[in-house]
Amino acid sequence: MSDDTDTPPASTAETQIDQRLERARNRIRDTSADALVLFPSTNLAYLSGFHEEPMERHLFLFVTADDAVFLAPTMYDTQLAAETPISDIRTWDDGDDPTALLARLGDDLGIEYGRLLVDDRMWARFTQDLRETFPEATFDLASHLLDDLRIRKDDRELDHLRAAATVADNVSTAIRSLGADAIGLTETELAAEIERRLSAAGGSGVSFETVVGSGPNGARPHHRHTDRTIRRGDPVVLDFGTVVDGYPSDQTRTVVFDGDPPAGFEDAHAAVLAAQKAAVRTVEPGVEAQAVDHAARNVLDERGYGDHFIHRTGHGVGLEVHEPPYITDGNDLELEPGMVFSIEPGVYLDDEFGIRIEDLVVVTDEGCERLNRSPRTWEPVTDVDD
Amino acid sequence: MSDDTDTPPASTAETQIDQRLERARNRIRDTSADALVLFPSTNLAYLSGFHEEPMERHLFLFVTADDAVFLAPTMYDTQLAAETPISDIRTWDDGDDPTALLARLGDDLGIEYGRLLVDDRMWARFTQDLRETFPEATFDLASHLLDDLRIRKDDRELDHLRAAATVADNVSTAIRSLGADAIGLTETELAAEIERRLSAAGGSGVSFETVVGSGPNGARPHHRHTDRTIRRGDPVVLDFGTVVDGYPSDQTRTVVFDGDPPAGFEDAHAAVLAAQKAAVRTVEPGVEAQAVDHAARNVLDERGYGDHFIHRTGHGVGLEVHEPPYITDGNDLELEPGMVFSIEPGVYLDDEFGIRIEDLVVVTDEGCERLNRSPRTWEPVTDVDD
Repeated sequence: MSDDTDTPPASTAETQIDQRLERARNRIRDTSADALVLFPSTNLAYLSGFHEEPMERHLFLFVTADDAVFLAPTMYDTQLAAETPISDIRTWDDGDDPTALLARLGDDLGIEYGRLLVDDRMWARFTQDLRETFPEATFDLASHLLDDLRIRKDDRELDHLRAAATVADNVSTAIRSLGADAIGLTETELAAEIERRLSAAGGSGVSFETVVGSGPNGARPHHRHTDRTIRRGDPVVLDFGTVVDGYPSDQTRTVVFDGDPPAGFEDAHAAVLAAQKAAVRTVEPGVEAQAVDHAARNVLDERGYGDHFIHRTGHGVGLEVHEPPYITDGNDLELEPGMVFSIEPGVYLDDEFGIRIEDLVVVTDEGCERLNRSPRTWEPVTDVDD
Repeated sequence: MSDDTDTPPASTAETQIDQRLERARNRIRDTSADALVLFPSTNLAYLSGFHEEPMERHLFLFVTADDAVFLAPTMYDTQLAAETPISDIRTWDDGDDPTALLARLGDDLGIEYGRLLVDDRMWARFTQDLRETFPEATFDLASHLLDDLRIRKDDRELDHLRAAATVADNVSTAIRSLGADAIGLTETELAAEIERRLSAAGGSGVSFETVVGSGPNGARPHHRHTDRTIRRGDPVVLDFGTVVDGYPSDQTRTVVFDGDPPAGFEDAHAAVLAAQKAAVRTVEPGVEAQAVDHAARNVLDERGYGDHFIHRTGHGVGLEVHEPPYITDGNDLELEPGMVFSIEPGVYLDDEFGIRIEDLVVVTDEGCERLNRSPRTWEPVTDVDD
């Protein structure tokens, strides 16, 4: 599906946006779509440089084969002028009816009867408005066009992802060197300490809610953190990330800060580690995404943990911390250089403990490069320097 | 539009959910709707107790006149069992086709031809799936039914909102007592200090991205913070909030940490303060929301700043930091006891400075109660204690 024009070269921020817009316009010309209709999201940031959270006010970017036009609340016009090279910005004030402006803009762009690709994360509130304003239009998702552009990262993007991974790795290593000092902290206190260090190390906020899953809490893959106190011998799942220049990190280690782990833990940890290694070794251009999932799953099946690996092996990471490619059974997408995703097999034993080991990898011409390099072992760090 | 059964009594968390579900079911019976279809959102949290961020996996709550059923990824079943009293949970594994389960559930509930009220913030990705799975159904927004329940807060909710406001007020007062020590900090450094203190004071994260708008940066209402250094005499817009028990705070003060403000600032600040007071005095049951906006706007018009007040006067605050009622021209909603919203007029002078003063208020039987009580003045705090 890719061709040379889709491999984004390194560039300055502004030319990067211009190149992305040009590639999107080429795709619109080549397909039956008439316009992308984006809403504050990473799709919008990717194509315009304008970073905003979803909001309850009407703010859209329309991209057609020939035009790129913002419809935005007046209060955003200064920020838009500062952040995006797109200069056609039509503003509305509180008190105006934004759907009237929407109708006029649709008329100007000639898309009232067209095929509109709306942002996958556009709120129903706004898709309902688009459907009512353009009753003759047909609707599909912007991802059908944009995912294939976003999935291959350019050199600037890889630099940001490497920088974010390094911040997380350094904090991971520092946190496990707490050793016995972590015993007696609550999960929430340890999460706060992780977040403080991420920020001090140059990260901007967290890329998702920090997970500190101690003892039986680790057996819930999407547990965050509670007032449970970390005890000697507890396995603790540490899954956290931060953001550097808009790009997130995401890695997981499962550690024991002090004392001996419970029966069965060492065997299960070795199985997860072997599964993760097998999956990483599978990655190279031309391999299907599901083959990476199968590699991890086969190891856990053979070792008797198959029923306890209850999620997919990984997800792509870019402007979103969860985006294509998804490393899951049934995904026959062929890996290509520049794709970045997590490899994170896990084993979850109800009421006992959980184990997950996660690194990000980027597909290279020859195989893959791990973005995370902190130790994957569970053992307490006994020779603490500080 | 309200009746006694809609005024939520104080209650435990679990009976609070049961009462909300019962009220929602009564509304479904009374209207032409057949089901609410919710997605991870504050609507979902409100009706189920299950708090989650939007996610790329299919997770829905269907509420009909007789049933409440979750469709969720298997990995969430433990968390669901822990957080919600709703017991009918149908799970799907990675690798399953969730739309097949969706079709089966629609059949079980008898809603394939029905009128479905989808979560206002449901992503287009999922509304497209619902439309393809139920091509004979009609679609509208859940807010048409839920807003009128959520807009009046019960005593438990007011307690949480007061607690969050108090945390923000205490931090606001402490930050301005930095006085001359704030000079030379960057906006980003001051934002980090605000966030650190919010957390130390018992807040859980921030309710929106912290705004530190110094000098000309304050003239952009949605500026966040940059590496600009705060200088003597700079007006600084400080707009921040945190979360307590799921409920956010939101307040703004515009201060000068040290030195003399620029020409024109004192007059503009006095005008904004007068506008805010006039708006607060307008609030009482039976008054239209727009009357509160008009009260603020009239003061700024009379004082010659009308063209520089470029946003609405306020927004409701509840589980969302922006929710109904919107305090804006054209909103003829009549205020009722238990409604909570911001009153935040502002003046923005391009390339010079901005001023905004914001408090949350709750409508009471007699008028209103301000939830924020920190000083609204701009003057440097000269007699610092610490």
